[in-house]
Amino acid sequence: MTSLLIRGGTVVNADRAFVADVLTQDGKIVAVGENLSAPVGATVVDAGGQYVMPGGIDPHTHMQLPFMGTTTMDDFFTGTAAGMAGGTTTIIDFVIPNPQQPLLEAYQTWRGWADKSASDYSFHVAITWWDETVKRDMGTLVQQEGVNSFKHFMAYKNAIMCDDETLVNSFKRALELGAMPTVHAENGELVYLLQAEVAKMGISGPEGHPLSRPPMVEAEAANRAIAIADVLGVPIYVVHVSCMEAADAIARARARGQRVYGEVLAGHLVLDDSVYRHPDFATAAAHVMSPPFRPVGHQEALWRGLQSGNLHTTATDHCTFCAAQKAAGKDNFAKIPNGTGGVEERLAVLWDAGVNTGRLTPSEFVAITSANTAKLFNIYPQKGSVSVGADADLVIWDPAGTKTLSAKTQHSKGDFNIFEGRTVRGIPSHTVSQGELVFVQGDLRAVQGKGRYIKRPAFSPNFAAAALRAEALKPTAVTR
Amino acid sequence: MTSLLIRGGTVVNADRAFVADVLTQDGKIVAVGENLSAPVGATVVDAGGQYVMPGGIDPHTHMQLPFMGTTTMDDFFTGTAAGMAGGTTTIIDFVIPNPQQPLLEAYQTWRGWADKSASDYSFHVAITWWDETVKRDMGTLVQQEGVNSFKHFMAYKNAIMCDDETLVNSFKRALELGAMPTVHAENGELVYLLQAEVAKMGISGPEGHPLSRPPMVEAEAANRAIAIADVLGVPIYVVHVSCMEAADAIARARARGQRVYGEVLAGHLVLDDSVYRHPDFATAAAHVMSPPFRPVGHQEALWRGLQSGNLHTTATDHCTFCAAQKAAGKDNFAKIPNGTGGVEERLAVLWDAGVNTGRLTPSEFVAITSANTAKLFNIYPQKGSVSVGADADLVIWDPAGTKTLSAKTQHSKGDFNIFEGRTVRGIPSHTVSQGELVFVQGDLRAVQGKGRYIKRPAFSPNFAAAALRAEALKPTAVTR
Amino acid sequence: MTSLLIRGGTVVNADRAFVADVLTQDGKIVAVGENLSAPVGATVVDAGGQYVMPGGIDPHTHMQLPFMGTTTMDDFFTGTAAGMAGGTTTIIDFVIPNPQQPLLEAYQTWRGWADKSASDYSFHVAITWWDETVKRDMGTLVQQEGVNSFKHFMAYKNAIMCDDETLVNSFKRALELGAMPTVHAENGELVYLLQAEVAKMGISGPEGHPLSRPPMVEAEAANRAIAIADVLGVPIYVVHVSCMEAADAIARARARGQRVYGEVLAGHLVLDDSVYRHPDFATAAAHVMSPPFRPVGHQEALWRGLQSGNLHTTATDHCTFCAAQKAAGKDNFAKIPNGTGGVEERLAVLWDAGVNTGRLTPSEFVAITSANTAKLFNIYPQKGSVSVGADADLVIWDPAGTKTLSAKTQHSKGDFNIFEGRTVRGIPSHTVSQGELVFVQGDLRAVQGKGRYIKRPAFSPNFAAAALRAEALKPTAVTR
Amino acid sequence: MTSLLIRGGTVVNADRAFVADVLTQDGKIVAVGENLSAPVGATVVDAGGQYVMPGGIDPHTHMQLPFMGTTTMDDFFTGTAAGMAGGTTTIIDFVIPNPQQPLLEAYQTWRGWADKSASDYSFHVAITWWDETVKRDMGTLVQQEGVNSFKHFMAYKNAIMCDDETLVNSFKRALELGAMPTVHAENGELVYLLQAEVAKMGISGPEGHPLSRPPMVEAEAANRAIAIADVLGVPIYVVHVSCMEAADAIARARARGQRVYGEVLAGHLVLDDSVYRHPDFATAAAHVMSPPFRPVGHQEALWRGLQSGNLHTTATDHCTFCAAQKAAGKDNFAKIPNGTGGVEERLAVLWDAGVNTGRLTPSEFVAITSANTAKLFNIYPQKGSVSVGADADLVIWDPAGTKTLSAKTQHSKGDFNIFEGRTVRGIPSHTVSQGELVFVQGDLRAVQGKGRYIKRPAFSPNFAAAALRAEALKPTAVTR
Repeated sequence: MTSLLIRGGTVVNADRAFVADVLTQDGKIVAVGENLSAPVGATVVDAGGQYVMPGGIDPHTHMQLPFMGTTTMDDFFTGTAAGMAGGTTTIIDFVIPNPQQPLLEAYQTWRGWADKSASDYSFHVAITWWDETVKRDMGTLVQQEGVNSFKHFMAYKNAIMCDDETLVNSFKRALELGAMPTVHAENGELVYLLQAEVAKMGISGPEGHPLSRPPMVEAEAANRAIAIADVLGVPIYVVHVSCMEAADAIARARARGQRVYGEVLAGHLVLDDSVYRHPDFATAAAHVMSPPFRPVGHQEALWRGLQSGNLHTTATDHCTFCAAQKAAGKDNFAKIPNGTGGVEERLAVLWDAGVNTGRLTPSEFVAITSANTAKLFNIYPQKGSVSVGADADLVIWDPAGTKTLSAKTQHSKGDFNIFEGRTVRGIPSHTVSQGELVFVQGDLRAVQGKGRYIKRPAFSPNFAAAALRAEALKPTAVTR
Repeated sequence: MTSLLIRGGTVVNADRAFVADVLTQDGKIVAVGENLSAPVGATVVDAGGQYVMPGGIDPHTHMQLPFMGTTTMDDFFTGTAAGMAGGTTTIIDFVIPNPQQPLLEAYQTWRGWADKSASDYSFHVAITWWDETVKRDMGTLVQQEGVNSFKHFMAYKNAIMCDDETLVNSFKRALELGAMPTVHAENGELVYLLQAEVAKMGISGPEGHPLSRPPMVEAEAANRAIAIADVLGVPIYVVHVSCMEAADAIARARARGQRVYGEVLAGHLVLDDSVYRHPDFATAAAHVMSPPFRPVGHQEALWRGLQSGNLHTTATDHCTFCAAQKAAGKDNFAKIPNGTGGVEERLAVLWDAGVNTGRLTPSEFVAITSANTAKLFNIYPQKGSVSVGADADLVIWDPAGTKTLSAKTQHSKGDFNIFEGRTVRGIPSHTVSQGELVFVQGDLRAVQGKGRYIKRPAFSPNFAAAALRAEALKPTAVTR
Repeated sequence: MTSLLIRGGTVVNADRAFVADVLTQDGKIVAVGENLSAPVGATVVDAGGQYVMPGGIDPHTHMQLPFMGTTTMDDFFTGTAAGMAGGTTTIIDFVIPNPQQPLLEAYQTWRGWADKSASDYSFHVAITWWDETVKRDMGTLVQQEGVNSFKHFMAYKNAIMCDDETLVNSFKRALELGAMPTVHAENGELVYLLQAEVAKMGISGPEGHPLSRPPMVEAEAANRAIAIADVLGVPIYVVHVSCMEAADAIARARARGQRVYGEVLAGHLVLDDSVYRHPDFATAAAHVMSPPFRPVGHQEALWRGLQSGNLHTTATDHCTFCAAQKAAGKDNFAKIPNGTGGVEERLAVLWDAGVNTGRLTPSEFVAITSANTAKLFNIYPQKGSVSVGADADLVIWDPAGTKTLSAKTQHSKGDFNIFEGRTVRGIPSHTVSQGELVFVQGDLRAVQGKGRYIKRPAFSPNFAAAALRAEALKPTAVTR
Repeated sequence: MTSLLIRGGTVVNADRAFVADVLTQDGKIVAVGENLSAPVGATVVDAGGQYVMPGGIDPHTHMQLPFMGTTTMDDFFTGTAAGMAGGTTTIIDFVIPNPQQPLLEAYQTWRGWADKSASDYSFHVAITWWDETVKRDMGTLVQQEGVNSFKHFMAYKNAIMCDDETLVNSFKRALELGAMPTVHAENGELVYLLQAEVAKMGISGPEGHPLSRPPMVEAEAANRAIAIADVLGVPIYVVHVSCMEAADAIARARARGQRVYGEVLAGHLVLDDSVYRHPDFATAAAHVMSPPFRPVGHQEALWRGLQSGNLHTTATDHCTFCAAQKAAGKDNFAKIPNGTGGVEERLAVLWDAGVNTGRLTPSEFVAITSANTAKLFNIYPQKGSVSVGADADLVIWDPAGTKTLSAKTQHSKGDFNIFEGRTVRGIPSHTVSQGELVFVQGDLRAVQGKGRYIKRPAFSPNFAAAALRAEALKPTAVTR
């Protein structure tokens, strides 16, 4: 029996913080309380002056993403290991079938790739096309494979973009299955036109990227997906909300009582679009991701969304293409592969910019880095909670520790760090995964293949409420 | 020389009201001032105690609309005549090509039908499909035929619905041509799904109509069209805004500085969706139009839009199907032909519910019944103004006159009146068209074929501003 | 040792619901888990098919409120007993000093009255005037008496109304002390004028009450208090938010990232202002409270606020004047004593209208009926949580049980029930207070004097965040 | 007979622009049309390639403002002359009685000072205290002196600040009289506290000024005044709206259908608060005015308000204290006299930043620089219109002319120019006042004492609508 006793820290959960020891055994938390005694053979960690929090969950990563015959730099091992170095102990990655590819085939492929994960992981599955087999396979995935969320790309015309007909069909199916529809919200028709228009203006460099995807392109799509969800009565989750207009669309819907949830990336919270005008192509291109970083002002709006509870989770969209891969768009920004890293830095960046500044309490930090994600994707309190019975996925957080973030020192295999040079106060001293110390004061002890696939049950409480709401609002026929 | 002297009234323009006589000659206003003398042979009308206003412009009618081998009850003669009986002296109707039909062919067909109009008229042209010939024909219509507005139906899937690709292409072309894009804002995919869902619930009667087209279906489409227009930098006009959520989408865009305009129908301002639950099928079906009449509360929101200047024009969508035609949807609300009348009642209904209640000043009434439409569609001050040089299209308004609206007494050939039984205070005593008295104290003197086609020039001032704005915001490339 | 085992129920906390037994001992929860064994002598309650939730906290009551030489019908015993009959196990009442009365004197008086409480209780203290002694006494109350919230009446001119100077001073002091300022938001100057204006129109009956306190009167004051709190950097709590405009003021502030919280009364969620036009004076007068019940539409807005998280707690403002007392305003609505009951009905009304309709999940119900209040007023998880170490204040909720609410069957000593005749589904089968069964299947076993005064510590996590925020935003001087 | 013919220009009115000659005679416009012939002796001005617009109206100036025994640098002659050099031909200044000073006495004093004006002028009168004589004198001013607007300072505690009681009383009286209440919206209690707090932080320089008057201080007051006006049913005009939060308060009220109007200063549209951190005290102090210039972002919000029609007029708050006067606050920013200039630069700054950038059409420029003000204060079309019968107050505008603004070249007697160094394109070539050329290609021909006091009649159309609205919403008593 493996046992770990974390002594003298302040346990932080989403609902409160309190001084307590935490005892784990065989990968589970077995006690949380004052003055716990260490079982024989237990490892004891002194957490005095530190916080003990649920390990981070990153609900938006792309490890080992295939791309034109090559793949992103981080595979499931290096990517999850990097996450653990930063206090993140679970990721939810994406299965992305090609149009016409059977969902289950793609799902099995990704499951295979993920076998080497160091930390626990799960998968959203993207709906990139529609027919009756897709509808059927959604059922199989939910009922047999523990998938409870489906992703829809509203951008990427002529590739994986969903039109409204597919959105409507898939959202409706998701509602039946008790699974959460999620959207990448950008209007693909507009992006397509704008890429051409920007090129016509003689702009071929990375500075063309944000010009081809202005905030209104995102806000429109977010609003559309939310409206469709509203009409169908299904909850909805908007990934990587990057601009105030999209955040407003979510807030407006929530103010109508709709169950809408928004995710924000760490990068969108602290970086602005000046990066695309960097004189060095490689640097500018390294920041190309979609939606792009936004003009100054949007960052504050996103923080406000998290503070007010109109936005709910944080992620990274970790997807690491190297300089050579990025160079594919040397002459045409539209061909720069989209993606940036961050799985390792997310917690520290958010603590420094969020908690140290008084924007968030420590409990609110836990809410947006793990607990809310766990609740929305129905793996709470297995994940996202420091409580008896929960998985022993923990981070011990040293609020006084500092670090200067850099590609040179990161564990990710990517060759760039969008937070380069940023000094943060508040860093993990230890990370615990499945009850094991996997990161200790800078020493990463990730084990390839140790991570487990986490099944996520359908029908979270949101869906029971949705069903009652539909019943309450059910119309009647007039007798004539 | 035909001459008419209107004496002793209060002239009301959109910018102010003042006591003055109005003299017309050969169809034009030649003098506005106090104590004008009547030329020899002039007809003199005493307007003491009355208002002299620009004749109404109804920017949204469907006269003689072809439908399954038959047509609406009102043709261009009876429809425009009915308008004149209510003080409306110009209509803007719609040319609606079938998908794949050349625009110019459809345009010529509608022009032929309209020859019999009693009042002046003009045409918006609908874009129901897209290819290079459509793009070319838009140019011909604008540059040679005086069309400066194009309509896009976002509903009616598998028929005349535009997808986003067509919207984007057509809006972009309209911007180049200096023509206003307009939209019927309803998400056609959702309507299609909801019609099926409502039917599955066992609802086949007219009460299913509003259930299949809830406010969010309209709001989504309005928001989408506005976002596309924003990204392209083209002004946009949303027809028949019926719900607070769509009005809010417009107000939000305007608050961002966007040139967005909204039209409201008289019916949407005073009727609510209880009409669809009328126990008599014919009555309920007679109210079927799209967007449908809305729950109580939305009407007030539309009034507020007009008061605040976030909504701009009023219309009727006059489209009169008779009971026999409506009966086509006896067993399926989705097959009830959409349309209601009102071209004759609009001004009186708006005066009674708008001016008498203090919601609108008389000048604001003129703004929303004629002047704003004339400005937006670039025929101001030829229309929409009581001023020297303007067309002598006038209404003399008796604020003390009352009338009970009814299908029995209306001039429209429709067999139903959605304002049935409503007693209004404030009615036209005289209508003047092209300097002729065409309606005198209840006596309608409409002349078939007297109406003229009104060319509308492109590039209203909105477009010059849009071009300067684009120039001011033009991005630059980074030198690397 | 008193011990209680609640077996087989579904425990509902604000963060989740799960099947578990609950064991209490000596007034505390000592175990929550599956298959707990009953200690010797333990009482066992079968909660199969039922929910086990934290007992309700009503953060807004006025028991035994002195009024013109008499008092409200419910004293602290009967009022808290009625609460327990409805599943509420804690109240927070108000100490209201007369202007110029020392705070501590008033506090001691109220503490004396509350000795007879059956359930636990605490006190907000009102600031009704200002000088240095008030400032000092606020400190004493916070540091020695466990008061962490101060109430400010913005209405009741010439009585207990705070002007802006007092608000500013008191809010600033509250920030220093780590105590939450709360406001009754109505503009007293406007109420004063409108009472006179309404009287001048010849309206003396209860229908004049809402006319003298329209929504904008409340919204203005809410916005003002929130703005003052924002400028000072102090969290704020708005009591009895009754209208959409005030809810919007809160939502707007929250969207700016401000820590603003809103409370809603059960009555405002389900009743509308038609009650004031009841032909029977006594009935109409029985509904007189401030802010008044609102026109149809506002109720839905309040629900939406609770659903979206822009409003946070629910209460009753329980304050029971009898018909004879209400008759004081027979000839002048402004003299009708303000107040209605509800401490007993709140939970059932909210469950029926909130959970049964899908507006709220069971966990969200717990959040708004106890947990959020406990967190905001810093007594969580002692109250508001079913967890080890918490007070054994519980309600066992029978979701299938029904009841028709009525003054005839209520336990409150009031002679009226604003929910009269409403049949609810979902009622308490048992209430547990301090580990004792105090209500069992309709049998109320309240014990006078059993309730304890609950001290509430200052400096909830909100205040630490506020201090960090102030530090982060601290301005600097320019060196010249 | 003096006669002036302006030939070949493009006349711009608020409703449209058109090519026409303009003929004036004896101070009035007598003809507007093509190919007008010049009367014998008429002066002819060639306006080819130029715009002919109504002379600007500046509705917010303080000429010759008494201050601690001295006065502002510009008196009514030099100030109005400077205005004419910039195309402004009418100002509306303020009579500001001391508390307890009879209104009529103050009014007569200011009238005396204004005798020397070069251009036409009028007066708002401030309500700085309240009793029955104030109420009576408001009537006299409206009915006998042509005052139709009253100003209320919500800031300046212990000086001219109105409390809510005075606001309520004065607004109510204004409604009876058909006069527009206007407000300087800043919460005086908060300013008072913040001035002390900022000083406590050790900030004594001009950078403390904006810290003591943050946007929320303005937004709160704007919202409060608007709410009071809404409850009373009186239109309201908010002077110098400087921040997005106050603009939003206005937009929200307008969206409710309320008749609320907002004024913006040229300075607030183009300057930001970085000016207060200028290392030179004199420069920083020269920008001290209230509300202060705002952080970047607010400027764009104000432009959007003007574009959307939620803000209506532009002004300058011209109030020129020299460096020696500003030095009074050398050691305490709160003692720096508040005021900046601009009456001469307003039109050029707004044209350059508004019309040249496509934010405004030329007609919209006229609306916000003269026509809207004339309408709101009921002197339209005497002022604010190029039309027959209007006063011959005109500006001939050279859109190609450029100028670099500077204190060195300004006509104002102030020693500072907040637009120093800004090069504008679009400047007046000629200004016409009362039919006389008073500014010709840089040559200022202002005549002391030539200006006339302009009476403004009460009961603009807004008030008739307000009365009808009150009637429509009038409540009734219940019969019991």
